[in-house]
Amino acid sequence: MKNCIKNILMLTLLAFAVSGPVCAAENVGTTLAALSDVQKYERAIHIMAMLLIGFGFLMVFVKKYGRSALTATYLLVSVSIPLYFLKESFHGVGGSEGIIDKLILAEFAAASLLICAGAVLGRLKMSQYMLLGVLFVPFYALNEWVVLNGGLGLISGKVVDTGGSIVIHAFGAIFGLAVAASMTTQKEYETPIECDDTSDRYSLLGSMVLWVFWPSFCAALVAPADVPRTAVNVILALCGSTIATYFASVRLRGKISAADIANATLAGGVAIGSTCDLAVPGTAFAIGIMAGIVSTFGFAIIQSRLTELTKKVDTCGVLYLHGMPGILGGVAALVVVSGINVVAQLTAILITVAIAAGSGLISGKVIAVMGRRSEPYIDEEEFEGEESGQNEVQPLIAATDTV
Amino acid sequence: MKNCIKNILMLTLLAFAVSGPVCAAENVGTTLAALSDVQKYERAIHIMAMLLIGFGFLMVFVKKYGRSALTATYLLVSVSIPLYFLKESFHGVGGSEGIIDKLILAEFAAASLLICAGAVLGRLKMSQYMLLGVLFVPFYALNEWVVLNGGLGLISGKVVDTGGSIVIHAFGAIFGLAVAASMTTQKEYETPIECDDTSDRYSLLGSMVLWVFWPSFCAALVAPADVPRTAVNVILALCGSTIATYFASVRLRGKISAADIANATLAGGVAIGSTCDLAVPGTAFAIGIMAGIVSTFGFAIIQSRLTELTKKVDTCGVLYLHGMPGILGGVAALVVVSGINVVAQLTAILITVAIAAGSGLISGKVIAVMGRRSEPYIDEEEFEGEESGQNEVQPLIAATDTV
Amino acid sequence: MKNCIKNILMLTLLAFAVSGPVCAAENVGTTLAALSDVQKYERAIHIMAMLLIGFGFLMVFVKKYGRSALTATYLLVSVSIPLYFLKESFHGVGGSEGIIDKLILAEFAAASLLICAGAVLGRLKMSQYMLLGVLFVPFYALNEWVVLNGGLGLISGKVVDTGGSIVIHAFGAIFGLAVAASMTTQKEYETPIECDDTSDRYSLLGSMVLWVFWPSFCAALVAPADVPRTAVNVILALCGSTIATYFASVRLRGKISAADIANATLAGGVAIGSTCDLAVPGTAFAIGIMAGIVSTFGFAIIQSRLTELTKKVDTCGVLYLHGMPGILGGVAALVVVSGINVVAQLTAILITVAIAAGSGLISGKVIAVMGRRSEPYIDEEEFEGEESGQNEVQPLIAATDTV
Repeated sequence: MKNCIKNILMLTLLAFAVSGPVCAAENVGTTLAALSDVQKYERAIHIMAMLLIGFGFLMVFVKKYGRSALTATYLLVSVSIPLYFLKESFHGVGGSEGIIDKLILAEFAAASLLICAGAVLGRLKMSQYMLLGVLFVPFYALNEWVVLNGGLGLISGKVVDTGGSIVIHAFGAIFGLAVAASMTTQKEYETPIECDDTSDRYSLLGSMVLWVFWPSFCAALVAPADVPRTAVNVILALCGSTIATYFASVRLRGKISAADIANATLAGGVAIGSTCDLAVPGTAFAIGIMAGIVSTFGFAIIQSRLTELTKKVDTCGVLYLHGMPGILGGVAALVVVSGINVVAQLTAILITVAIAAGSGLISGKVIAVMGRRSEPYIDEEEFEGEESGQNEVQPLIAATDTV
Repeated sequence: MKNCIKNILMLTLLAFAVSGPVCAAENVGTTLAALSDVQKYERAIHIMAMLLIGFGFLMVFVKKYGRSALTATYLLVSVSIPLYFLKESFHGVGGSEGIIDKLILAEFAAASLLICAGAVLGRLKMSQYMLLGVLFVPFYALNEWVVLNGGLGLISGKVVDTGGSIVIHAFGAIFGLAVAASMTTQKEYETPIECDDTSDRYSLLGSMVLWVFWPSFCAALVAPADVPRTAVNVILALCGSTIATYFASVRLRGKISAADIANATLAGGVAIGSTCDLAVPGTAFAIGIMAGIVSTFGFAIIQSRLTELTKKVDTCGVLYLHGMPGILGGVAALVVVSGINVVAQLTAILITVAIAAGSGLISGKVIAVMGRRSEPYIDEEEFEGEESGQNEVQPLIAATDTV
Repeated sequence: MKNCIKNILMLTLLAFAVSGPVCAAENVGTTLAALSDVQKYERAIHIMAMLLIGFGFLMVFVKKYGRSALTATYLLVSVSIPLYFLKESFHGVGGSEGIIDKLILAEFAAASLLICAGAVLGRLKMSQYMLLGVLFVPFYALNEWVVLNGGLGLISGKVVDTGGSIVIHAFGAIFGLAVAASMTTQKEYETPIECDDTSDRYSLLGSMVLWVFWPSFCAALVAPADVPRTAVNVILALCGSTIATYFASVRLRGKISAADIANATLAGGVAIGSTCDLAVPGTAFAIGIMAGIVSTFGFAIIQSRLTELTKKVDTCGVLYLHGMPGILGGVAALVVVSGINVVAQLTAILITVAIAAGSGLISGKVIAVMGRRSEPYIDEEEFEGEESGQNEVQPLIAATDTV
């Protein structure tokens, strides 16, 4: 009896003693989850810097178009992010549960939209960019759902695309090309969009902002333990494409093109997207080199020929920076990732191309209803005053030329 | 006896077994706190990017004033942050306990000072900016103490102002307006400060840096678990004000003003400050839209009339970007936050306006003692060489004009 | 017997009850380590922003050299980071264990290389920059090994250099000066590198990016609990050098030099490097003030005299921004850190100077084999088109001059 009491006493003591750490462990779990979410938030801010400052300034190279490019960037981001959140709220997954993941997914949609807009840069009014955003987001979400979340049951198996080579870069580029194809008239083609070759430094600023924060884009939704390896892979891929771009640019053009340096240097980031958390460093570097070569070849050789052939203009060359390297990245996963579901991966690429092309053609027709232009858009059309900016040598001539 | 020994043995065993996790839990607590502080540090760095790059480049639009605006930004930050730390050290709260919170509070003071300086941009010499900083920080700290920490017992109750709509934005703006009112002479008014309308891209760069990092400003001192929701609210408010600014600018001016896009797009961030951690996403978006409209209306309609009426110049229009949206944000809390202490909130706004106006007037008089000018300040006055910069069309004429 | 069973039962129960929290604690430990690594990753991204955007734009001030400076920055980073990783992989420390520390160390090497390149800016072709990177990294790693890791047994004792005043800043600067000394011919000296004094705003952008992210550079590898204090020390040192630079520039030159503001403001960050985690805030501020004065004195007084004396050009003045403040920081540790190993610290400085000077001289000779120039490098030599940029007043004359 005495023993029994003793034992009960001890069991009670035991229960209390142990429950402390157990409770603490539960609280610790909640706090760890919160800290991990704040780290995702940090990466979300990095992505926002890429969207506004990176994409915005990379596009500041069309003649007399600096303010429009930056304003369009502002509007495209501000339309697409709330729209994506609105879509998410239809799922009934309200509250702030997983809200940071939704923010990152919304930023991915905005990134894809900005890539898309690059193809038609210099052709649209501000209101048309907003319409483009409204049309783009649902189609983007459809493709995301079909390819990554098994929507419609078209793909059975895991698609490898952590950093979005396929669903973000290739989708956005092909959607944009389809919009351009569906909108551009013969007259538009004949009036080329002139480059403002004084804006190299701004473009390089945008380029560098994208380069710097690219690891956060690819690792945005990756588990904490995998972030360092992913980051190193992305950085090595970018180093690879940067070196390759220099050599390819000199080789293919005779001289270095600052536009190649601003653009093709980033192709490594695009191509490593699919396999950023799975590749080993050496492979990542090699993928970067290949992407840099492919992209520079696109800008230096393919662009002028394709433009002549199709009579359609891809203003920023999104096919060469996002389209080709994106698909390269999706295909590279077949070699890099052991045990990959080959059918699922290839189907994902084909579906993405199909949805992007189809919905882009439709969207282009809808946008064209709001007005087409025979002359390229210039800032003065919609903006107050005159941005003599860095064109101030002959502003008057230019102004009379273009209105 | 044997049992007794067994039991003692078991109790000892128990004690050891349990003490491991207990100790671990204590260490875990310390580590979690350290990690949480490092996350605050990350946000502190984001705020620093806003202070120097954001505010700095947003202000690079006054004619022949690019270098001064950036140098003034450097000096204002470098004077106010150590000064705020010095004040803190008087409290006897030495050591590195809570040092990261102090850093963030010091950055808030610097932000408010930079807002204040925007009102008198183009009127002060570099040394006068530093004097402005020395005068500003104590008054700012006084208002912070009275409004947020119950100083002097004037406010009994919690004031809702997490992101500083009232104590940072409205305070800085009104202080600056009072300085301008107290300093500007009739002659100064008649010699307007000319805009360098070639600097749109720099202003938009500053604007975008502010936009991107704004969530970190508002969430700087928020608990980890609340950071994601706060960030989403701030981003949605900024999206709202960006879209609203476009529509309002076109509506009110006929054409888009790049200055509106650079400035009023940020009004959503100002206005969501008070309620950034308490609002729901839809409300945040709505507050952003309202703030964008109010701010654009200020820039497009009120500014020119008020300038004519008062014969005083608010160089950067801080009343319309920080003053009006700041007070809007403070008042919006009355509607958004259930169970808010209405009296405390309204008293906080009134006290802030009163302290800012009074201390601004005094500070203006003090600064004026160091010299006033009939001509707007130009870089050449204090800077070596000539920044032909983007004004190189008529540098010689300008130079002879102004010296 | 019954008691015995009871006791066994209880022990079993105990084992289970306790094993839960113990296991949890182990998992918690792993998660905490992962979160801490992600925080290092955040700082690694900040450093990357410094390398590309900071150093890149700070160097955009040589006449007709904007695109080259930025392209060179891209190439130097992209060569040095993979090279440093390659070196690490020779150690057989494969896998992703500690991979984030390696990334940060690789970035430190890249930073030192960029400092080095600043001394010869405007003298090298793009391919020569890459060769410079290939030559630099092994020597840098040798010095790092000898000074910080006890390599060759030359230093017995801990060297205080957390933020790299000695091994990063002083090493890079002296290596660069040696390269310049070893390469520059009399004819090169006589053809001065002209400054593009229209690029102040770009230089100030680069400067501000460096200022903002400097705390992450110094605290990159510091334990979480020490990050806040380190950050505050770095920020106060930078505030000190910024204020000191203003006063020294006015004092020594009569007027403010924008180049001083862009450069010497950062000297506080260089000098606080060695003791960033050990100093108290007041000392940090004082070190910053001293560094600002020393650096501005270097730019304003020493630079022109030394150039005339040695007939050698240090294009960016790395001696005055990184060399002198770096050694000042290393020596300051003798005063600031109690119980410091004085012999080890001084030996570290001497060895660093010796290795940097020796290897720089050799590297200069090797690079010179690839071609020297009598005229400063201009963009048109290797770049397509013409960056009329901000020199558009006389683009035609310049073009005919230079080809």
